[in-house]
Amino acid sequence: MKFHEFSFRVRYAETDQMGMVYHGNYAQFLEMGRVEWLRSLGVSYKSMEENGVILPVIHLQIDYKKSARYDDVITVKTMLKKRPLVKIEFDYELYGPKGELLATANTVLAFLDKETNRPIKCPDDVLEKLP
Amino acid sequence: MKFHEFSFRVRYAETDQMGMVYHGNYAQFLEMGRVEWLRSLGVSYKSMEENGVILPVIHLQIDYKKSARYDDVITVKTMLKKRPLVKIEFDYELYGPKGELLATANTVLAFLDKETNRPIKCPDDVLEKLP
Amino acid sequence: MKFHEFSFRVRYAETDQMGMVYHGNYAQFLEMGRVEWLRSLGVSYKSMEENGVILPVIHLQIDYKKSARYDDVITVKTMLKKRPLVKIEFDYELYGPKGELLATANTVLAFLDKETNRPIKCPDDVLEKLP
Amino acid sequence: MKFHEFSFRVRYAETDQMGMVYHGNYAQFLEMGRVEWLRSLGVSYKSMEENGVILPVIHLQIDYKKSARYDDVITVKTMLKKRPLVKIEFDYELYGPKGELLATANTVLAFLDKETNRPIKCPDDVLEKLP
Repeated sequence: MKFHEFSFRVRYAETDQMGMVYHGNYAQFLEMGRVEWLRSLGVSYKSMEENGVILPVIHLQIDYKKSARYDDVITVKTMLKKRPLVKIEFDYELYGPKGELLATANTVLAFLDKETNRPIKCPDDVLEKLP
Repeated sequence: MKFHEFSFRVRYAETDQMGMVYHGNYAQFLEMGRVEWLRSLGVSYKSMEENGVILPVIHLQIDYKKSARYDDVITVKTMLKKRPLVKIEFDYELYGPKGELLATANTVLAFLDKETNRPIKCPDDVLEKLP
Repeated sequence: MKFHEFSFRVRYAETDQMGMVYHGNYAQFLEMGRVEWLRSLGVSYKSMEENGVILPVIHLQIDYKKSARYDDVITVKTMLKKRPLVKIEFDYELYGPKGELLATANTVLAFLDKETNRPIKCPDDVLEKLP
Repeated sequence: MKFHEFSFRVRYAETDQMGMVYHGNYAQFLEMGRVEWLRSLGVSYKSMEENGVILPVIHLQIDYKKSARYDDVITVKTMLKKRPLVKIEFDYELYGPKGELLATANTVLAFLDKETNRPIKCPDDVLEKLP
């Protein structure tokens, strides 16, 4: 499947004094979404890195619709945008406990050789497992 | 002036195991940039909130060009995009210790009444101080 | 029961450039441990706060034995130290994926009235549910 | 001198919904305190790590006296407890904008060889610079 859903609970530390989740923390929520999507396909991001491939984020965009609250269970829906080459792009939708849309987001990550820091193609063993 | 520069040093906690600054932490750097820009104009974000106006981020976009490292002194250049009405928009450039461009970014924030959570106009006393 | 176990997976954002979990993040792990312990007893920390009781941490102590790594599933074992009066004290043990002891910890939290910020006794409805 | 003071301003991201600084963030404040103390003596923690020595925290203790607030300028007073051998121990006092004591703290860090992860002595060039 081209999308995957992952849920987690908001930590107290993730709130700010507005009484909502600090907006910058959403970057971590997206990270969990794509890592769990990869895991569901049988790809371990951790192993990929141990094999010499790093995947830094080069573009991050988030549009916040409704505020998330402490102790809410949030669901991240992660969608692969297209077949990756030297970059991999995801769209995301974040939902609150009542199914309300909290935010939409997009990230682009680049495959890099860990030693040289140079762009490389998406590893074949990852490509094979992608939907 | 329509732009403002603020510098700070990267904390160890802000790095990740790639040996660079975790990309999600940039949201905090932008926050410091715009708060210090406001302060330089004589506007305290803290006071604004105490006076019943909150300013949540509704759009965040970051394009990462080069990685930032532990202990680097980073400079955030914050630029007001246009005169605010019910929203306020900023562009940012982040520079590393050698003046290299690390990232560009954009945020849109909405003025809200703290009690009702409803959109309001940028307070007059803030408008008066804006360039 | 006087103890409770809660497991979660280490996020990439939680690592630092030493390649291990940044030590300061353990405070959040302990927070999750005690909140889930309360939930297992039928006490919602969120509701308690909505009912006017806050519970700030006044003492935190952590002894780190082994480093935790990215993607590890960590288990927090939370133990109530004694029946709470105006304070509540917990001991913790954190375990790695192979059952190895990562850290031991202790926190003391104070029951405060949210409005006056003054010490109060542990609410009766919480006391009734405690083991 | 055996102590050093470093000041910084609380970020919005560092608050939680109690309206105060999240207690776990103090670990970062202590980290800044000891790193700036080292820098004031001519020791760069960054260089030390590049030279193969890492310095993980093995003990952390914080006693919170008063809450810190958003936008407050906080001063960390860092004191070397004794001449380091294979470990280095610091005491800290954190002060708020009116000089009020916010917290006291203590950390113990261990000198480790970055490659072998084994305990080593405090490097000689660091020892020479210590008070």
